[in-house]
Amino acid sequence: MQIAIALYPHHTALDAIGPYQVFSYLPGAEVVVCAAAPGPLVDDRRGLTLEITHAFGDIEAPDVVIVPGGLIARALARRGDPIIDWIRDVHERTRFTTSVCTGALLLGAAGLLRGRRATTHWSSYDELRAYGAEPTAERVVDEGRILTAAGVSAGIDLALTLVGRLAGPEAAQAIQLGLEYDPQPPYDAGSPAKVSPELRELVRAVLTDGEDQYLGGTPA
Amino acid sequence: MQIAIALYPHHTALDAIGPYQVFSYLPGAEVVVCAAAPGPLVDDRRGLTLEITHAFGDIEAPDVVIVPGGLIARALARRGDPIIDWIRDVHERTRFTTSVCTGALLLGAAGLLRGRRATTHWSSYDELRAYGAEPTAERVVDEGRILTAAGVSAGIDLALTLVGRLAGPEAAQAIQLGLEYDPQPPYDAGSPAKVSPELRELVRAVLTDGEDQYLGGTPA
Repeated sequence: MQIAIALYPHHTALDAIGPYQVFSYLPGAEVVVCAAAPGPLVDDRRGLTLEITHAFGDIEAPDVVIVPGGLIARALARRGDPIIDWIRDVHERTRFTTSVCTGALLLGAAGLLRGRRATTHWSSYDELRAYGAEPTAERVVDEGRILTAAGVSAGIDLALTLVGRLAGPEAAQAIQLGLEYDPQPPYDAGSPAKVSPELRELVRAVLTDGEDQYLGGTPA
Repeated sequence: MQIAIALYPHHTALDAIGPYQVFSYLPGAEVVVCAAAPGPLVDDRRGLTLEITHAFGDIEAPDVVIVPGGLIARALARRGDPIIDWIRDVHERTRFTTSVCTGALLLGAAGLLRGRRATTHWSSYDELRAYGAEPTAERVVDEGRILTAAGVSAGIDLALTLVGRLAGPEAAQAIQLGLEYDPQPPYDAGSPAKVSPELRELVRAVLTDGEDQYLGGTPA
């Protein structure tokens, strides 16, 4: 079984590594991290560089595709990017095509979400609607072959859900125990419904600034 | 403010990237990922390669040190490794010296945990005790300047705790919201107290096998 995590310059690292870590313990699964071209790939906070070994062209029939988000994802979805064509192509052969956070906008740009319920980072529901999806405030939205997860950390919940589907609940529970995923956040501020409007707008502004920094620059 | 995430070949990727992502949004903080030498560094599931730009020698006075765990960490703690000497040295100048998962064994080997409460991955309490610590089944154990977190995913909770300490609760809550960290695991199997003895022993065996594979081989 092949699990492909599909990246691009300025993805969000945790969107990718949460699912990577879960699937890395699935017996019989090969997890490949791929991008348009092999070589170094920097994340959207510019502090991490992953060395990519597989190009999209090397990954023709993955069983599962996971598309992480990133501060640049809205822009890529609007202006077009090689990952969008690759998603559209391999989706014909996957068992599950999935996204984390604003990775859903890339699924949307590939035409996969028209008329479907889907989720993304809470700050990007309007963009998701523009691709014909029905934005849904759930942690993981399951539309059969297509699953979408909420922002960043939701990729861990998505991956455990997928492992349960692919290998049964005991396999998923074993991995959850191995990763000691018994979350106890020190605050209860993880969803927009749980915080003040002021905090919500502050965070929205930071994320939008984060996006803007890539649009005028030269992505590495 | 400098946050140093200290790595070694065959660390666990999510132990590092959870805290990295949280701190990447802390205003005014520089997050550096360092190791004994610059160059490519493979994780303990061998599917990810990080390009390291900073050597330990370049990081002399970090404000915060975070030491991730890895399947090889027990062996490194026993046989010695450059990271142990570096931890012992910079701890004299840090504001917080912290670990995720079996990273605690490296703090232990550096002599930092003698007579202190500490935590680690649930499968490694005995090893932790061998370094003079008092193993404690809590998500994050706070001993003032030294904080230790439970297995793998607990690094996210540790990092939010630290941000609250360094920059106040509103900063931590803003980051939690930005990462949409409102966890909803599809199963409730994230701690050893929540699963059957059979599942617990199965997972312990997998993790021990995982460790053994490095001891005879040649770490990349």
